[in-house]
Order: sequence, then structure tokens, then C-alpha cells
Amino acid sequence: MSSVKTIRIKASKMKFHFAEKLFSFDFSNEDAEKCADIFTQNSLDGVYSHGVNRFPRFIDYLKKGYVLPKNKPTLKNQLGLIEQWDGALGPGPLNAFFATNRALNLAKEFGIGCVALSNTNHWMRGGYYGWQAAKEGQIFIGWTNTTAIMPAWGAKDSKLGNNPLVIGIPYRNEAVVLDMSMSQFSYGAMELTELKNEKLLVAGGYDKDGKLTNDPGLILKSLRTIPVGFWKGSGLSFVLDIMAVILSNGLAVHQVAQKEEEISCSQIFITINPENLAGYSHKDNVIDEIVNDLKSSTSIDEYSQIRYPGERAVKNRKENTEKGIPVLESVWNEILNL
Amino acid sequence: MSSVKTIRIKASKMKFHFAEKLFSFDFSNEDAEKCADIFTQNSLDGVYSHGVNRFPRFIDYLKKGYVLPKNKPTLKNQLGLIEQWDGALGPGPLNAFFATNRALNLAKEFGIGCVALSNTNHWMRGGYYGWQAAKEGQIFIGWTNTTAIMPAWGAKDSKLGNNPLVIGIPYRNEAVVLDMSMSQFSYGAMELTELKNEKLLVAGGYDKDGKLTNDPGLILKSLRTIPVGFWKGSGLSFVLDIMAVILSNGLAVHQVAQKEEEISCSQIFITINPENLAGYSHKDNVIDEIVNDLKSSTSIDEYSQIRYPGERAVKNRKENTEKGIPVLESVWNEILNL
Repeated sequence: MSSVKTIRIKASKMKFHFAEKLFSFDFSNEDAEKCADIFTQNSLDGVYSHGVNRFPRFIDYLKKGYVLPKNKPTLKNQLGLIEQWDGALGPGPLNAFFATNRALNLAKEFGIGCVALSNTNHWMRGGYYGWQAAKEGQIFIGWTNTTAIMPAWGAKDSKLGNNPLVIGIPYRNEAVVLDMSMSQFSYGAMELTELKNEKLLVAGGYDKDGKLTNDPGLILKSLRTIPVGFWKGSGLSFVLDIMAVILSNGLAVHQVAQKEEEISCSQIFITINPENLAGYSHKDNVIDEIVNDLKSSTSIDEYSQIRYPGERAVKNRKENTEKGIPVLESVWNEILNL
Repeated sequence: MSSVKTIRIKASKMKFHFAEKLFSFDFSNEDAEKCADIFTQNSLDGVYSHGVNRFPRFIDYLKKGYVLPKNKPTLKNQLGLIEQWDGALGPGPLNAFFATNRALNLAKEFGIGCVALSNTNHWMRGGYYGWQAAKEGQIFIGWTNTTAIMPAWGAKDSKLGNNPLVIGIPYRNEAVVLDMSMSQFSYGAMELTELKNEKLLVAGGYDKDGKLTNDPGLILKSLRTIPVGFWKGSGLSFVLDIMAVILSNGLAVHQVAQKEEEISCSQIFITINPENLAGYSHKDNVIDEIVNDLKSSTSIDEYSQIRYPGERAVKNRKENTEKGIPVLESVWNEILNL
């Protein structure tokens, strides 16, 4: 069994180490730094699964030629505020960062910007791009398709993608950012829960007999996870795939699933520039009121905290900036030996 | 106990009856017909809860002055392809129909249109506007906020709206349309299930002791429904409210909840004109492939059908057009006596 000892790595140290490693894999100086920064920021914000813990797999994809470090998105079609780009199988985080910036620039000019990106790679943590837009004062609505990982409602075999949906809204010096994948639990989360010999908080899928269960081990055997809200998330995952595909002219979930690995995804980046909206100058006060109303809820027990999307990221960032980013020692050793 | 005998009413008869009634409540000739048509179409498509079954409450709101039949949306702010309108507490379906049309026209000109509507009333079935846009060849993303009906994740008391999200995509002569509210079950669905002395298909909320249950009676007592996907739908409901409010400069869920009834909602209508997108001429074939892949799933049992969002509406529409719209006799009698 792997070591469960956790160590803390300072963000700058992590970032420089990632950058050095990426530079050795043919990233330009600038790209290595940006990509390393995204992995580090995701870790600082507490999304380790799509930060430090995912770095070894990212390197593996570079080694195997799934992710092509020198490739840049190319413009396929330009329709004013809508643009279609080919991601050319470049590094997913860099492509998504680029596409978000492009959408932000379009929205500065037109009020809304929409960039549809085909043939790109895993963007890691989608929330990153919601924060990116919010920090520029814009609203963000974006999503990606993925490989097939989840059965549709009423089905046994996995045809649907996890297709995370991200919504980001500027809020004072920070943001409200929702980053929501369409499965109730990720396989990673279920594996971790099983490793700790714990149960899932709510049912996460079916056992081999088709009974709902919160036992991660049984779901990992059946491979029958459930969509968020059963038939509802099943439908949302499906329409997000269709929109990503027809807007980007890229591959659908079932086509990504035919690849050796999860590559050549389709992604959408919509940004709205709200600065000239009536009432927008008061928006922080308006959001304060909505947040305060939420926080005035009666908790189910003394331990439960009622949080808004993005709140925990700010807390994690603060703590991890001070103390260093928590990493399993075994994972960090793996990274040092990549 | 109310009669559960179902009768079938032909769509044209229903529409003319609704129109006559609305005309008597001070709707113009044209508005009476359009509003009646929306209620009838919703019923034809099988969404009786926001069609025929809801008509008596709509009339009640007219009688009480919550819905003002002669009021029309007025333009508050125009920023090119983004417009902010005041719904002036006019009839929700007419306001939403207008706003969708306005967004469609903006998207014809700019590629994308965004209409944010404040101070409007319940739009009935959100899916209607997804179909409306899709029939004009455009993609639709829209949502409304509502009054507070659901506790946030970790909370006991209801602070969140049901905030339905609608996504519509043109597909051959019909459409793929998702119409998804943020609670796992509506109160209406739970009441109906209880009336039939049945259980919910999956857990729909908590009993008074905070245990998840699929017994609708226990949830109707506790008033603790669950959001779609627990913490995930809780977050999505929250961000949809914030976006609706800051884009429209309208009221938030907690403010609507302070009104005597659910009035003065905030709604967003985003349309995308896809006609000049690269690859769009093949989009029906592309959607065929995605639909066929979904349909090739292995069913959990011989009774389960795997459907895509909007598929059942087409089936219902066909059947109800032929046979008439099924209505509880007691409901139809109530409507006749309004």
C-alpha cells in the first residue's frame, strides 16, 4: 500500500519544479511557466486531483505523444464574436487559457465572446478558467466534453461524458465559481474513499445487481456511476456534448471514447462583459445580500457549513499559500523521479 | 377526494377556451390567442403541470392583480447584442415569448443575442422557449429564478430557487430540449405520487429526522427537498440566481420569496445563431450519431427506454394531437367554471 504521509510543498517551489520538467519536454520558456502555474494554482485552490496529483499523468501523455507541447490553437472560422479554433492537440491547460483570453477580448469588443475549441486536450480544472475570466471582471460560462465514463439514465454501459460545466462570476476581489462535473462522484474520489475504507456521503452508483449504493468498491466493480440528479444530469451531460460538438465542429464523447486515451476534446468558452449593464455598479452589494441570505440558513447540525461555490477555493488558497500545498509524499517522490 | 377520471380535450378546443377566458380578463385579441397557445402547446407536449393544470392558478393571479394582462416589457438598457428589459409584471409566458424573439433577432444580427428580463412573472414551461428558438434554427440557453423552495446543501430551511435551466438545440424538424429544474422532484410531482400512494423513484428529500427518503408524504411534511445532485445542484441553483439578477438588474430568489406570491422573477434568454459555423451543415448527421450512440446503450431492463431530452415531448405531442389532451375531469370542470 502506498504511503499516506502528507508533506507540504511551497507553491513557488512546486511551480518552478513543474516548469523545469515541462521545459525539458520541449515547452517554450513562457509556456512551461504558464502551464506550471495552472497546475500549481489548481493545487493551491485545493483541487489536487487536477493539480499536483495529475501532473505525472500529464507528463506521461507528453511522453506518449498524446499532448503535443509545441502545438498552438489555429483559427478555423471567425464570425465576429464567435470563433472556432482547432486546438491541434496542444497542452489542454494552455489551449483553454488561450481560448478564455480570446473570449474575454471578444467580449470587451462585442459584449459577449464565444470561443469553441475542437481537438484539444484535458483542461485539468475547469474552474481555473472561470476564475481567470472573473479576475478580468467578466462572467464565464464554459464546458468541455470528455471520454465516456457514465451510463445514461436507464442504461448499464457508459455512454455519457463527465462534461464539467463551469460558471464564474466576479465578486469583490474574488469570484463565485461553480465547477460541476455531471457524475455525482469522480472515479478518483471513489477510489480515495475506498482506500480510506469509508462510504460515500450519498449513493454514487449501482452495485452489480442494480441497487443504488454508497459503497465505492461496489461501484468501482460495476462501473455504473450515477449522473447528478439521475435523469436530469444524464440529460444535461448529453446536451452539453451536442452543443460542444456542433459549436466547435469537434469530436463527440463517443468519438473521444474510441481514442486510446482521453484526447481531442471539444470545449466552449463564453464570456459576458457586464461593465455597462444597468445596476452593475452595485453588483457586489447584490451578491453580498444573496450570499448573506444563503448563510443565514439553519444548518442541519453544528458541524455543517453552508458555503457558496468558490468560497472553499479562497480558504484553501490562503492556507496553502501560508503552509505549503499538501501532497502525499509518495506522489511528490513520483514527481521528483519523472 | 377529487375525481381521478381523465378525459381528453382536443387542442383547438382547449386553446379557444383558454383564449376566450383570457380575453375576458382584458388580454388583447392577439395576446389572448398567444397565451392560450402556449398553455395548450405545453399540454400537448405532456407538460400538464405547466399547461392545462396550471391555468386556474394563472387566472387566479390575474384576478388578484399579480399578473397585469396589458403590461408589456420595456427596454431599460441596450448594449448591442445584450439588452435589459423590464417585464412590468405582465403575463410571464408572453414576456418570455417576447424576450426569446428579441434574442433571436439580436442573434440574427450579431451571432449571439442576450435578453435579460427583470420584474416578470412565471414563464410556465421553460422548455417552450427552447423549442421556440430551435424552430427558428437557433441554439437556446435560458433560465429563470423562482421563489425559495429548497434548502441549500447542509441547510434545513429553503433559501434556494428551483431556477429551471433550459437548453434547446435544433435537430432535424424537431429539437433536443432540456428543461431542468434544480430540485430532484417538484412539490407537484411529490403530491401526485403521494395521492397515488406510491414512492418516488429515488430519494427526493429528507424526513423530519434528516434521513433521506423516497416517501413523498414525509418530504411534504419536512419541506426539505433535495437539489439535483445534492451539493452540485445547490451550487448551480445559486449561481443561476446570481447571474439572472446581475444581468437583468432584477430581484433575487430571497427577494421574490418576500412577495405574497411568486412574482417579479428575473430571467435570461441567450440564443446563438449557428448557421455560419464551420461544419453546421452536417449537424443533423452529427446529432444522429450522438443519439444513436446513446440509444445503443444496454438497458437496465426490458422496460427501460433510453431517451434524449425532448424526445418524449414529440411523442406526447403526436399522441395528444390525435387523441386529445388528457385532463383530470375535475380540473377541466374547474376551468369551465373559472
